[in-house]
Amino acid sequence: MSKNYIIAQSGGPTVAINASLVGIVEKLKEAPNTGKIYGSLHGIQGVLKKELVDLSTYDNTLLTKIKYSPAMYLGSCRFRLPGNRDNEDTYKNIFSVFEELDIDTFFYIGGNDSMDTVLKLNAYAQNNHIDIRIIGVPKTIDNDLLVTDHTPGFGSAAKYVASTFREIAYDTHIYDLQSVTIVEVMGRDSGWLTAAAALARNSYNAAPQLIYLPEVPFSTSDFLEDVKRAMDSYQNIVIAVSEGIRDKDGHYIAAGVSESDQFGHSQLSGAGKVLEYLVKERLHVKVRSVEINILQRAAAHLSSLTDINEAYELGGAAAGYSFEKLSGIMTVLKRKDTKSYETEISYVDVSQVANKAKYVPSSMINDMGNDITNDMLEYLSPLVIGQVPVEYADGIVDYAPFLY
Amino acid sequence: MSKNYIIAQSGGPTVAINASLVGIVEKLKEAPNTGKIYGSLHGIQGVLKKELVDLSTYDNTLLTKIKYSPAMYLGSCRFRLPGNRDNEDTYKNIFSVFEELDIDTFFYIGGNDSMDTVLKLNAYAQNNHIDIRIIGVPKTIDNDLLVTDHTPGFGSAAKYVASTFREIAYDTHIYDLQSVTIVEVMGRDSGWLTAAAALARNSYNAAPQLIYLPEVPFSTSDFLEDVKRAMDSYQNIVIAVSEGIRDKDGHYIAAGVSESDQFGHSQLSGAGKVLEYLVKERLHVKVRSVEINILQRAAAHLSSLTDINEAYELGGAAAGYSFEKLSGIMTVLKRKDTKSYETEISYVDVSQVANKAKYVPSSMINDMGNDITNDMLEYLSPLVIGQVPVEYADGIVDYAPFLY
Repeated sequence: MSKNYIIAQSGGPTVAINASLVGIVEKLKEAPNTGKIYGSLHGIQGVLKKELVDLSTYDNTLLTKIKYSPAMYLGSCRFRLPGNRDNEDTYKNIFSVFEELDIDTFFYIGGNDSMDTVLKLNAYAQNNHIDIRIIGVPKTIDNDLLVTDHTPGFGSAAKYVASTFREIAYDTHIYDLQSVTIVEVMGRDSGWLTAAAALARNSYNAAPQLIYLPEVPFSTSDFLEDVKRAMDSYQNIVIAVSEGIRDKDGHYIAAGVSESDQFGHSQLSGAGKVLEYLVKERLHVKVRSVEINILQRAAAHLSSLTDINEAYELGGAAAGYSFEKLSGIMTVLKRKDTKSYETEISYVDVSQVANKAKYVPSSMINDMGNDITNDMLEYLSPLVIGQVPVEYADGIVDYAPFLY
Repeated sequence: MSKNYIIAQSGGPTVAINASLVGIVEKLKEAPNTGKIYGSLHGIQGVLKKELVDLSTYDNTLLTKIKYSPAMYLGSCRFRLPGNRDNEDTYKNIFSVFEELDIDTFFYIGGNDSMDTVLKLNAYAQNNHIDIRIIGVPKTIDNDLLVTDHTPGFGSAAKYVASTFREIAYDTHIYDLQSVTIVEVMGRDSGWLTAAAALARNSYNAAPQLIYLPEVPFSTSDFLEDVKRAMDSYQNIVIAVSEGIRDKDGHYIAAGVSESDQFGHSQLSGAGKVLEYLVKERLHVKVRSVEINILQRAAAHLSSLTDINEAYELGGAAAGYSFEKLSGIMTVLKRKDTKSYETEISYVDVSQVANKAKYVPSSMINDMGNDITNDMLEYLSPLVIGQVPVEYADGIVDYAPFLY
């Protein structure tokens, strides 16, 4: 008897989440008794609305193109499942679709919010003795999932961030004038991605000279001292700051600015912008700020091959665990304790991951709280290795066509 | 008798300006009577300070690496030569260095400000019967130099902008929610680079749906009507705006915001940020703004091969014109009137270029002033074709080492 599957993607975009999708699809297609492989549009919402496509009919050329495409081929959602008791109807609707389509396994690719959905659906299935598997596959550029050594999407974002810092270093290096450039990197609560800016350094480039993570309480006076000290050694300073830096009372630096524009609204400026004006006012030096913004999660042309391959394999492994009848799990990467970088794939009960977050440990942050340590460099370095094939159409980066 | 040369780079960075440098150096090295090929650090200032390096000793491997590196290998300056009568000492100092080093030709690679330097130095040499050639080589991502069909650096920036808009289109496409994303592109006075966002469109991607150039007086009421209309047809709207858009009275939209932060300073927001808050307030839709910022002029890993090759050839041609004893000229590209894209290199008297600017003509802007025409697409399309070799070191984009 043939088995049917549903795959959905959720949360914020990364460039690796489609590799996991294709990893699942290709592994399922290998199994002799695979029937339909449904892709659910816009996360779990596509199940509720029965907006599904059959991915088992996709040929290898299209699947490979999807593998290297940014964001979510199937679309995403920010829908959070209500607690079981709050709204059992939602669960009944979801599981009636699963039953109607004779679904063997539901795969959900996402971050810690999405793993909450995996947890709840699995609990509902167990409590109601429904024979179905619910399996999570991780992704997030923030790298803030527990248990797994790192998350798919992070290595590519890190490669983009480090490459961009290196290019910015060239840009800032040209003038024979003291200058400060503050670059804001994504990461509301965890500083993994901001730390990756350090990979821009090499034998001749010391930028970024300073790195500030949200794990360290931010002090504007210490910051100004740091910048002054760096200006004694370098003419052009580049500073990496996480969007989520906060002062010792937990107030976002980014939220410190309230602005009233010509239309009478107040608005928020990012942390980088706030620090730009602080440096300008206090240090009277040429300064500018750059927000890398969504480019760091969308620039698939600079994906890390290591990252994309791992994302693909974590997807395939999820399909394998489905064949083994496992449920309520998320696939994880374990780093082997070897000199050269090697990983093995395993899984974890999703309750250990859902709604939790992994922060940068103090061993990876220097004592002054304005840089990372060698431990962090050793952790990060293997994750950005290797380039993906990039296609161009009429000179512009080219990816899989939109599905909808 | 051997001939010595000086080359300098000036103005804002592009990813093509080093290709012109290498083009000059390699052509000069071919000539049997070439002696020293000095590179002047930080533009003309390196001549005044006698901060010079000898590029004739550079091997092909290093020169090729420099060719594909962003910004200025020799550094830049924003130094504007005073008028001859205002400060003859500066001229005397420059020409005494030229004489001392027995310079045959001074090459200056830059934008319209730099061509002003070429013009003034050439006039001084002629008025004082000094036997030297002063030759300009164009560059600017703004594409605002007259006579030349386009400028080196523009095609690569256009390729980066269009590729980035396409990646942003993927990022905005994922949610099943109405959204507006406003992306600000460089271009204070001319809209060429913002127009290049249109190259992101293809058979399935209509983003950016709206494009605003500084050549068209910006009306916020028309803009809001445009966005509302676009929202009737598309769920996710991407809008390209030039940083330099102005209202009918010539006031920058970017300058409309005055902000007072926690430190009591006022600050300026970019045009994209201002429009973000306008859309949020008036249309009550999910909206964000992205400023591509300096990445669009520094991202050498996405350079256009056409652009880099043309920059290289314009440099080589400048050396050739030096051998022909021409002076007071700038090399230019002429587009041949053929179906397939072909250019030929020529030159122009630098007085026709210096201190002047080329704007987007009305034939390349649609009647509503919110998009470009097919004429513009035909103009832009060939300039972004082809990819350059990109090197990576430890997974991060790798360029020529800093010179200083």
